[in-house]
Amino acid sequence: MSIQGNMIIGQQRRFGQAGQLKAINPATNTEIEPAFGLANAADVEQACQLAREAFDQYRETTPEQRAVFLETIADEILALGTSLIDRAHQETGLPIARLEGERGRTMNQLRLFAKVVRDGYYLNATLDSALLERTPPRPDLRMRKIAIGPVAVFGASNFPLAFSVAGGDTASALAAGCPVVVKAHSAHLGTSELVAQAIQTAAAKCHMPEGVFSCLIGDGRQIGQSLVSHAAIKAVGFTGSRQGGIALMRTAAQRHEPIPVYAEMSSINPVFLMPSALAARSTQIAQGFVESLTLGAGQFCTNPGLVIAIDSTDLENFIETAANALQAKAAATMLTPGIHHAYVKGTEQLSSIAGVSKVAEGQAGGSACAAQVRLSSCTAPQFLNTPALSEEIFGPSSLIIRCADLDEVHAIAEFIEGQLTATVHANEADYELVKALMPILERKAGRILFNGFPTGVEVAHAMVHGGPFPSTSDSRTTSVGATAIDRFIRPVCYQELPAALTPASLQQDNPWSVPRIVNGELQLGK
Amino acid sequence: MSIQGNMIIGQQRRFGQAGQLKAINPATNTEIEPAFGLANAADVEQACQLAREAFDQYRETTPEQRAVFLETIADEILALGTSLIDRAHQETGLPIARLEGERGRTMNQLRLFAKVVRDGYYLNATLDSALLERTPPRPDLRMRKIAIGPVAVFGASNFPLAFSVAGGDTASALAAGCPVVVKAHSAHLGTSELVAQAIQTAAAKCHMPEGVFSCLIGDGRQIGQSLVSHAAIKAVGFTGSRQGGIALMRTAAQRHEPIPVYAEMSSINPVFLMPSALAARSTQIAQGFVESLTLGAGQFCTNPGLVIAIDSTDLENFIETAANALQAKAAATMLTPGIHHAYVKGTEQLSSIAGVSKVAEGQAGGSACAAQVRLSSCTAPQFLNTPALSEEIFGPSSLIIRCADLDEVHAIAEFIEGQLTATVHANEADYELVKALMPILERKAGRILFNGFPTGVEVAHAMVHGGPFPSTSDSRTTSVGATAIDRFIRPVCYQELPAALTPASLQQDNPWSVPRIVNGELQLGK
Repeated sequence: MSIQGNMIIGQQRRFGQAGQLKAINPATNTEIEPAFGLANAADVEQACQLAREAFDQYRETTPEQRAVFLETIADEILALGTSLIDRAHQETGLPIARLEGERGRTMNQLRLFAKVVRDGYYLNATLDSALLERTPPRPDLRMRKIAIGPVAVFGASNFPLAFSVAGGDTASALAAGCPVVVKAHSAHLGTSELVAQAIQTAAAKCHMPEGVFSCLIGDGRQIGQSLVSHAAIKAVGFTGSRQGGIALMRTAAQRHEPIPVYAEMSSINPVFLMPSALAARSTQIAQGFVESLTLGAGQFCTNPGLVIAIDSTDLENFIETAANALQAKAAATMLTPGIHHAYVKGTEQLSSIAGVSKVAEGQAGGSACAAQVRLSSCTAPQFLNTPALSEEIFGPSSLIIRCADLDEVHAIAEFIEGQLTATVHANEADYELVKALMPILERKAGRILFNGFPTGVEVAHAMVHGGPFPSTSDSRTTSVGATAIDRFIRPVCYQELPAALTPASLQQDNPWSVPRIVNGELQLGK
Repeated sequence: MSIQGNMIIGQQRRFGQAGQLKAINPATNTEIEPAFGLANAADVEQACQLAREAFDQYRETTPEQRAVFLETIADEILALGTSLIDRAHQETGLPIARLEGERGRTMNQLRLFAKVVRDGYYLNATLDSALLERTPPRPDLRMRKIAIGPVAVFGASNFPLAFSVAGGDTASALAAGCPVVVKAHSAHLGTSELVAQAIQTAAAKCHMPEGVFSCLIGDGRQIGQSLVSHAAIKAVGFTGSRQGGIALMRTAAQRHEPIPVYAEMSSINPVFLMPSALAARSTQIAQGFVESLTLGAGQFCTNPGLVIAIDSTDLENFIETAANALQAKAAATMLTPGIHHAYVKGTEQLSSIAGVSKVAEGQAGGSACAAQVRLSSCTAPQFLNTPALSEEIFGPSSLIIRCADLDEVHAIAEFIEGQLTATVHANEADYELVKALMPILERKAGRILFNGFPTGVEVAHAMVHGGPFPSTSDSRTTSVGATAIDRFIRPVCYQELPAALTPASLQQDNPWSVPRIVNGELQLGK
């Protein structure tokens, strides 16, 4: 496979006719060959129409067929070899080792969803037997979850593999039985084309219906909006900016038939340092914090952008240690010139806010789009009175809030918007204080961590990568982990369904051995 | 307890100062004493503020505490005795026996949710153990679902008990751990006050925090919109018109923090008569159909408003039998003068559409708001070319679509909007035809019935009373049955949570004996 500048529309590869675009190497701020052709309205229409036509067949493939398809995608991505990693490195400036790790994560996600499909817990198979003697008689009722319909996926800039063309949204939607139409992120077009080719190849090898997958190239505001507006699309997965996510939410809500949007948008990931923990290990926490803050040039949705603690000499030691560690950090290349520009502007604005002090900054220089690490501080009243301080600065910048007392800590916790994560550093002597804080954090965040750092989102059954608005558009869901599949399914109840027409998951003898709730009692199925 | 015209705000009973309103007896079109006081902005604020304050405490009550609270509500409603039934009869025109049955259903719902809370399946408790040897090490991760926040509930006109103040939305939200603020339906204000008093009494007896429940009286467009706009409210349950539901969806989507709206709105519930079934038992199907159509004066969300069949002598027999049965039906009192007016207007408009024939009508006369049953017919092309024919006429009116062939049947199935139900009458000889129809019906409806009628929605684990837009605002959910609780919860993941801070459902020894997914494998818990 090679990079031709093509879109993938079903089993076709097509050079778009609505203009051209090249990827940019952020380390040098120069264009990378070749040019990519942009989609027009007919391309969007064809991808959506193919997805619609594929839906009924694809959603009723067996668990084994769908699991093998997901595993084959993982294999085909691995088979792309170093050409994928090299291209991703050129397009994103991310180090080779990081990209190899991310490829592993991407394959793990696909394989996790293969297991999820085979296990069949997500089907929520439920049977209530007929009670013919009752007045009135109860009919036989059987419920399963089915795929919601074709899904539009918008990849993230900061994970060119794990949250992009074959990322968590695509993997969970395909697992659910939904055809996927991806809008490739313009920041890594070549990476996207290679991965899209791998999925296309896997679809052909596994004899999937043609429209199960397409990957369009184009402008988010134009191609993206027309994709989300298309009547065939029944749900949207998005990882990106708050502004971009809200625009898609609006479009989806204004459709004749509104559809769910799962947008993962904006989070500043508060880290609470409790007094006893700070007294016991401020140096260690500071070192861990700086590593987390600077990982991947700070370009994580879970980057620790806010530190909250009560003023003390221990806090001073934390700040001093963090400042020293941070000053030694080299500037790292950011993903795109646009992200770099926004970061520089964001930190400049931060400096201009009265009452915000610069604590330390990392080394300057480096590549074209290199970001200088930044640590700032302010008081709690200052934070509470300055809405701009709650806004995410995407990159390696964090703000320490010095609180006078525990009441101010609680006031900050209540004040912040919804978050993907909240972190607590606490020793046993802090537990009573933490008990008072926990209910607030549970209302604010999708994941609450103790004595660690929020970067690093494990792909597991218990993971929640989600949270109240504006961290996501839908606090009821997660975009990472096994239950991400729940976003793309809906329940259907069958009443007095003849045995000859009953889907396997609901047949009396449970041929798929899935767990089921039978007359109100959970049964394992195997 | 007696009817005083009061709102219930926490443990207070208050006569609203923003105007007065009386309930109307639809049988006589006369007002019923006493007057009810309407809420002002301060009442809304207080109810929401109390709910906010109650939330953290209420959501962490034990399963047993919450289950007993739900059961106590059921007991308190029963203790209202005939005064509740008599008042509901006066306010709605519904027969006494129907209301007694509906009271039983309401109590069953509350008791089902007590079981759901005790069983704890809804918690989705999930544990992934730490893997310290792995590179990088996997942290300990535990996930549970918690209550989403205070919920605003809008009762339905057509079920003054089962879908109103203590109906399915309230029961499932309280079960989830969400405080509830109800906007009482103006069509049954006295019934609402009595039931609200019963919940208030149960809350006091069970030592629940004051704000766990309030019931406001006021205009839907004013009090309802300000309730849905209030920052403390985190989800909305609604049963009513398409227009009303869409207005709430818009308001919720435009909030600074958008929130989910579960609106159950509009459905015409197509009934497909397959050739062999029609040949074998057209008379029997016709009789069942007329009973379903006229039940409760046709005022069910699941009323069979559309019949689709291929033209044949068997269809002629079905129509003739239905017409005869229907002509004998007396006019029944509708719920409100407004609903009656809309029904009369709707059937008049139907008659005026070219190509629509009146097949038969029931007897005229009766009470002030009595509805004459109506059966009409048209051809498939006529239906496909007349959007107005797809609109719900709330009441005992149904339209038969005569199809030339199976292609037209499929075209109708693809053309209709989302539905709560789709019904199929089929014999074994029809199964091949049904197999081709099923995928379409699965995309269109939340419940698919065989050889029965859609009225009658069993309260059970496998029930789905939901469906694609516009039947509801959110096809991923149901408003009836055990899984209705899933609308009011969201997942929270805890990473490396100290044992001393771990909620019971996630503790190592599983003290609540709830089912859990542990390292990817489902365990029953007991």
